Amino acid sequence: MFLLNGAKAESLSLQDRGLQYGDGLFETIAVRNHQLEFWQHHMQRLLAGCQRLRIPSPDPGLLLAEARQLLDGADDAVLKLTVTRGQGGRGYRAATISDSNPSRILAVYEEPDYPAENQANGIVARYCDTRLGTSPSLAGIKHLNRLEQVLARSEWQDDAIFEGLMLAAHGRVTEGTMSNLFFVKAGVLHTPNLSNAGVAGIIRDVVLAFAQQQKIPVAIGHYSKTDFAAADEIFICNSLIGVWPVRLLEQQRFSIGSITKQIIAVVNAARLRDAAHEAL
Amino acid sequence: MFLLNGAKAESLSLQDRGLQYGDGLFETIAVRNHQLEFWQHHMQRLLAGCQRLRIPSPDPGLLLAEARQLLDGADDAVLKLTVTRGQGGRGYRAATISDSNPSRILAVYEEPDYPAENQANGIVARYCDTRLGTSPSLAGIKHLNRLEQVLARSEWQDDAIFEGLMLAAHGRVTEGTMSNLFFVKAGVLHTPNLSNAGVAGIIRDVVLAFAQQQKIPVAIGHYSKTDFAAADEIFICNSLIGVWPVRLLEQQRFSIGSITKQIIAVVNAARLRDAAHEAL
Repeated sequence: MFLLNGAKAESLSLQDRGLQYGDGLFETIAVRNHQLEFWQHHMQRLLAGCQRLRIPSPDPGLLLAEARQLLDGADDAVLKLTVTRGQGGRGYRAATISDSNPSRILAVYEEPDYPAENQANGIVARYCDTRLGTSPSLAGIKHLNRLEQVLARSEWQDDAIFEGLMLAAHGRVTEGTMSNLFFVKAGVLHTPNLSNAGVAGIIRDVVLAFAQQQKIPVAIGHYSKTDFAAADEIFICNSLIGVWPVRLLEQQRFSIGSITKQIIAVVNAARLRDAAHEAL
Repeated sequence: MFLLNGAKAESLSLQDRGLQYGDGLFETIAVRNHQLEFWQHHMQRLLAGCQRLRIPSPDPGLLLAEARQLLDGADDAVLKLTVTRGQGGRGYRAATISDSNPSRILAVYEEPDYPAENQANGIVARYCDTRLGTSPSLAGIKHLNRLEQVLARSEWQDDAIFEGLMLAAHGRVTEGTMSNLFFVKAGVLHTPNLSNAGVAGIIRDVVLAFAQQQKIPVAIGHYSKTDFAAADEIFICNSLIGVWPVRLLEQQRFSIGSITKQIIAVVNAARLRDAAHEAL
């Protein structure tokens, strides 16, 4: 089910630049217990992305009203929110920001049917061969140019593997195809620097804020496969899964340690109740 | 005017992965003198792109029939041909190639109104700040993930500047926002290596084939702004413009030398008549 600029729709103009160039942004928002989880965070990232791409920012109040209309009291679901620069002619040159008329697309999907044991027992992960391009102007934001993730996700069909880790230039382990990465080494929580590649995830921010609050030492840096192989604990996160420990990465076993367990507990608690949520 | 999978259409399903992830490819084909210029080359690149992205290849015969139907005897125009992986649910994971049902979009646009003196007298170009990501898995093909070009093209509004040159990692001058680059130095024709970034253009291939045939020495390499500043001649090319000399790059003047003139003459001749064209 879709809302396009506030009206029920099934299709989008073939002139939309979202289709022509991936000229837009999206957010994937968990809907649980009649709440839009971390709505405020998603709006912040979406608006930051609009600013970076010079797309007029949609009104968050309008988006919220439309989300409520579309979800119509749904309990558990996924809300995908896409903003494109809107229609345009052939050619990369875009209308100026004041002449742009963005497209606002809201879509509702069923909650994915992930096994509960993924969080309790950890998942199996692998490394992908597809590299992340280094692109400072696009790093961090959740734009619609996602072919690298599509190619990386197509590298395996084994349903026992839940995530693929992607490397950027210089062999830097940067993110999963659909998640951000953390590892713990000697009591320090490490996560890849995303200034040149990767999406700055909402749950990543939540984890970092919690770590700071709990005085868990944090390092944001550039890490290789060797650094990950030497980790005491590894976990991944995104808005739909929350936090999943990695128990097996390329045949190497990792334990679910105390910091991962602490992070899982606090993220789960925040998913139940947080000031950044919005009720449906 | 659009044809979607052979039928007149104005819009595309909101579930199409072309919109969701830029999961597809396109070709921009010049239509002149009732011919589809370099049709065979465009089909080769499109099919190579489909193979790289593991999208089922469309039938070139069907595309040609549809192009003829859409253009309906047009004289001069632009045909844009887009192939996406087709509809899909949420999530990067794509259907296997045998389960994919690609979308085939043909669009016709007016011929751009470029000044004739661009070819005779050369153009003004600049350098862009937006960098090209380094992405070997996507380099060379003309995929739909074009935000870098959109951002680069948005860096200037001065209509006197016709192209912006983009750098990839390590300051390598790689391509224009909409064109490929060549320079001549001491009788050698140089063009950037595109194995890590950039689109391998049709006219670039035509130029390279001609140089080989005419025994003009060619080098494909990695070049810096310094190499371009030291050039004797610079020109850009794409399917719509053919070849344009660069007469001014960031305030530095370049002359239109004999090799550039030779290339212009042969590309113009090939645009009039070539075995790779298809009649409408």
